[in-house]
Amino acid sequence: MTRTVGVLLFDQFELLDVFGPLEMLGLLDEDFSIRLISQQASAVSSAQGPRSMIDDHFADDRSYDVLLVPGGMGTRREVENTALLQWLLRAAGRAEIVASVCTGSALLAKAGLLDGRRATTNKLSFDWVVSQGPAVQWQRRARWVEDGKFFTSSGVSAGMDMALALIARLCGIERARQAAHWAEYVWNEDRENDPFARDTV
Amino acid sequence: MTRTVGVLLFDQFELLDVFGPLEMLGLLDEDFSIRLISQQASAVSSAQGPRSMIDDHFADDRSYDVLLVPGGMGTRREVENTALLQWLLRAAGRAEIVASVCTGSALLAKAGLLDGRRATTNKLSFDWVVSQGPAVQWQRRARWVEDGKFFTSSGVSAGMDMALALIARLCGIERARQAAHWAEYVWNEDRENDPFARDTV
Repeated sequence: MTRTVGVLLFDQFELLDVFGPLEMLGLLDEDFSIRLISQQASAVSSAQGPRSMIDDHFADDRSYDVLLVPGGMGTRREVENTALLQWLLRAAGRAEIVASVCTGSALLAKAGLLDGRRATTNKLSFDWVVSQGPAVQWQRRARWVEDGKFFTSSGVSAGMDMALALIARLCGIERARQAAHWAEYVWNEDRENDPFARDTV
Repeated sequence: MTRTVGVLLFDQFELLDVFGPLEMLGLLDEDFSIRLISQQASAVSSAQGPRSMIDDHFADDRSYDVLLVPGGMGTRREVENTALLQWLLRAAGRAEIVASVCTGSALLAKAGLLDGRRATTNKLSFDWVVSQGPAVQWQRRARWVEDGKFFTSSGVSAGMDMALALIARLCGIERARQAAHWAEYVWNEDRENDPFARDTV
């Protein structure tokens, strides 16, 4: 079974929030196929500059098995984007797994998707993200958090550890370890091992 | 001083070989600006599917302070691409630093740039890469290797550790540690600490 991974992009998304998880998922091309989504634009600029070509737009109203929401400076603007939050609610409702990296959880929280659930986010923007979802049970010490179908990770690099956990959930832990091995990546398999928790601000 | 980072893209480049290092460099936007380069195409597809928009073509004949060459399945084809190897020779000659990730070192080796130098590459494609540059002093145990202006890294994720070493060389180790910290990345600072050396084939 090949699952479709839909990735929400917006101007000033964080590069590694997107392409770290997509490296791990994309190595398993029998298991996952990837589509990049934007509201309307045909290409979207990352916070670091490089631009990505888009496959789908909100108006296509597609379903995705796995929905991935990155962070980056652009989230500060997008938490006020009603069209994006409405699309997110609809796409998340149809997805088997919804995952965010870094401040991407602010968008899930603002859409109300995380209310009453445990979640985490970037440690260097913690209080701002918390303010976007006061009904969320925010976890200060976690490399990533799983609550039902929602996976939320800490900052940037933590998205790779979370993506491997997501692979383990859907395809088994041996497949996740295989992907990490192919990428010569030392997977932090313990979601409670958070070397950056002390920096929470 | 802002240095220009030029990144060579070709069809079926490996996603994280490119965007892992670019995350680290791009976090330091006062120090580095990024340009993506292809032979002719306006957009290039990664091995995992996602497509990147291109900034420069070979015919623009630009100079880059830092030249980054990724790996990926596409390198198996590009080692036979004379136009690419000639461009690489010219661009590398003008660069302050030339860096490769994973099988990207096969392209540097085939162009003759690594002859007589120490270098490394992906551990799961080691013998094929070695065959592209028999006069190179290939290192089987190394997370990355520095020899003069040439930085070469092991597979995929090792590119992030190497990029931080490159930042340390150009901007000082505190700046590199700052970038790793912002990315919540546990930097393997020891280039001889290679957890995947045992897998060399």
